[in-house]
Amino acid sequence: MKGYRIKPGARFALTEFDPDDTGNYNKDDDGKAKAKAATAERIVTLDQLQERLYANGSRALLIVLQGMDTSGKDGTIRSVMTGVNPQGCTVVSFKAPSAEELSRDFLWRVHKQVPAKGQIGIFNRSHYEDVLITRVHGWISDKEAERRFGQIREFEELLVEQGTAILKFFLYISKDEQKARLESRIRDPDKRWKWSSGDLEERKLWDGYMTAFEEVIAATSTERAPWYVVPANRKWYRNLVVAELVVQALTAMKLSRPPAPKGVNFDRLHIV
Amino acid sequence: MKGYRIKPGARFALTEFDPDDTGNYNKDDDGKAKAKAATAERIVTLDQLQERLYANGSRALLIVLQGMDTSGKDGTIRSVMTGVNPQGCTVVSFKAPSAEELSRDFLWRVHKQVPAKGQIGIFNRSHYEDVLITRVHGWISDKEAERRFGQIREFEELLVEQGTAILKFFLYISKDEQKARLESRIRDPDKRWKWSSGDLEERKLWDGYMTAFEEVIAATSTERAPWYVVPANRKWYRNLVVAELVVQALTAMKLSRPPAPKGVNFDRLHIV
Repeated sequence: MKGYRIKPGARFALTEFDPDDTGNYNKDDDGKAKAKAATAERIVTLDQLQERLYANGSRALLIVLQGMDTSGKDGTIRSVMTGVNPQGCTVVSFKAPSAEELSRDFLWRVHKQVPAKGQIGIFNRSHYEDVLITRVHGWISDKEAERRFGQIREFEELLVEQGTAILKFFLYISKDEQKARLESRIRDPDKRWKWSSGDLEERKLWDGYMTAFEEVIAATSTERAPWYVVPANRKWYRNLVVAELVVQALTAMKLSRPPAPKGVNFDRLHIV
Repeated sequence: MKGYRIKPGARFALTEFDPDDTGNYNKDDDGKAKAKAATAERIVTLDQLQERLYANGSRALLIVLQGMDTSGKDGTIRSVMTGVNPQGCTVVSFKAPSAEELSRDFLWRVHKQVPAKGQIGIFNRSHYEDVLITRVHGWISDKEAERRFGQIREFEELLVEQGTAILKFFLYISKDEQKARLESRIRDPDKRWKWSSGDLEERKLWDGYMTAFEEVIAATSTERAPWYVVPANRKWYRNLVVAELVVQALTAMKLSRPPAPKGVNFDRLHIV
């Protein structure tokens, strides 16, 4: 999994990564079944770790999901986080900002939604939209983008220093894979409600998005708030990578069972 | 399940209900296994209905959980809602109000947290604390309590008229069952962190709480925002009752598959 982590400060090209990658798993039904079984195991562990996180109440985990349309942000949440107690897991989907939000700095609405101690918080899109779509469409200048990169790094550093671990996932699909997924939305009447003509417009800007992702990820992947480029053409491998990295992050917290309240003599307590 | 529903405007006594009730299920291992299997089926259905609710985006469901300490509010959420996509399910736990919250009317902080369209929202404790603990401790007068009953009815009516279905569950355990559960928290080192000496103080006020629950439930169970008295001594039956009623409420919405966006000629769409 380390190979998917982007080293801080290093320029990289997305072409170094393969959206079709399936790691140690074969690309056939056998590999798929094995990966699914491994993911199911991770999810059981994840549920246990999350219970510990919640009981302990001293740390939080923030998961940022970014990717092109149809890259599987919703699907990843559904597949990896269903099976986790919703009392300890909050999902925030960021849409186009409201007038009230636009009248503040771009991190204002995001800061309000960071997970509380004891919680796993998932951002389905995030403050990174403010350096992605805005950039690709030329709504902000290069200078403003650079300024925002620094502000994002410092904002995330604040969260980390105050107890929140951060994982950032770029769900990397190929342009062909997006084509196939958009076509299935057109063909399958059950999926047509998901269709948005805006998706086609953004698709035309594919290359610009790839360049923007490379720049943003290189500028904001830090030691303590790393970006991962997750191969996402195969949903089953994408789910495994995300589940494994979330389990690793929670395990690394080494959370102990919360202590009993102090000053209580449990041996002498008597309920009447 | 209808038997657990409190009719609007009718006085009732909790003694008419049996916290040990297990409906059509035997109280032995066989009954427990059957009830658990039935609950698992409901949870699969619940997940499907919730996906439809989310996709449809026109309605919401608010679930209010109230009950004495150890009555199983957390456990119900864990048992019934784990297995539902957290992207469509938000849980809010209401604690003692902050200074900022106390400086507003008691519904202010609650209104902010109602579920968005497409969401199942769960209140783990709720605005009902403002007519329960406050009443039992004599912090508000009878007259103020009556006023709040009316305000709560109107607040919930607003939510219902604007598209949110409401289910309110009183998890009803016996005083003996609470004793057993508190004792297991004392004895089991794994559970001691849950211990709060405040629980013992509230337990001393048990009878006052039962009277307060009877009054509150009678005054605020309405046709469209009903209260259910859920027998909760046996966790497996409690889970079944809640799962079944949630499934019924979502089914009653008769949510259709969301329509495809208008004005798009899907047959002529072509992805390049």
